[in-house]
Amino acid sequence: MGFFTKDIATLDDLFVHTLRDIYYAEKKIAKTLPGMIDKASDEMLKAGFERHLDQTHGHIERVEKVFKMHGVEASAVNCPAIDGIVEETDEISDEIEDDAVLDAALIAAAQAVEHYEITRYGSLIAWAKMLGREDCASVLAQNLAEEKATDKELTQLAESKINMKSAA
Amino acid sequence: MGFFTKDIATLDDLFVHTLRDIYYAEKKIAKTLPGMIDKASDEMLKAGFERHLDQTHGHIERVEKVFKMHGVEASAVNCPAIDGIVEETDEISDEIEDDAVLDAALIAAAQAVEHYEITRYGSLIAWAKMLGREDCASVLAQNLAEEKATDKELTQLAESKINMKSAA
Repeated sequence: MGFFTKDIATLDDLFVHTLRDIYYAEKKIAKTLPGMIDKASDEMLKAGFERHLDQTHGHIERVEKVFKMHGVEASAVNCPAIDGIVEETDEISDEIEDDAVLDAALIAAAQAVEHYEITRYGSLIAWAKMLGREDCASVLAQNLAEEKATDKELTQLAESKINMKSAA
Repeated sequence: MGFFTKDIATLDDLFVHTLRDIYYAEKKIAKTLPGMIDKASDEMLKAGFERHLDQTHGHIERVEKVFKMHGVEASAVNCPAIDGIVEETDEISDEIEDDAVLDAALIAAAQAVEHYEITRYGSLIAWAKMLGREDCASVLAQNLAEEKATDKELTQLAESKINMKSAA
């Protein structure tokens, strides 16, 4: 970013900047999930995180597709928000010995990640439509739908099983 | 936090730790919103942020009530997640000259904050119920309902007005 100029002049610039933010976030999540899979004890939770890792690779490809459709270079900008969410996950994991309590904390951490993605894709889709890019909005909407579905699955798994085990 | 011991042994400890995390986050939001009110240009957006600031003071009081009900001291732990979200808001605001584009970015930033709170209150409420603390869950559910309503209002304001102004 420039030292003397303001780099975001239009809604289009804001859209591209935020696309670069979510691109960074998706890549960070792809790097973070393997550690969460290792730490998880419950087999259903492990399997859920593994499915989400596969999905995340697909999300990265879709974001790259949107960069191409919009005619800009696929590049990432730092995203302190996702860095903070991941840092908090690491910090809390280090404080927990009990496997079942750790699983409850990991599910909550994953849902914080999902909610960050849900809000960013929501803004990106609204801005794409405003810019007349229904085509980009439609690709991004596929990622949003999957993030929302994952968040719902995690809530169900937490409430039907993981929280109960952690309170035992 | 201890250097030689793991401080979170039970789901109750995880609940209290996360309550301290959201206590820090709510206080940080109360400190951040006045700057967002100053930066916003649209009168409806300014008024929305002002209402949310009032609400945030009420949320802090409710969290303090839950600490008391649960018999633990009201104290905050650092929350790198909300720090990251706020840092990202400051960074992007500094890059934008145009008032209408800045308003679009501020609304997106506020929604990232809302979603962080929504996910944390969701976990806290589920854990409180699991711990047999329906009374705490019910107080926290009031904060959750208000965060969800604010997020919805911000989406409506973005889609009905702010995004259109920013694309003009």
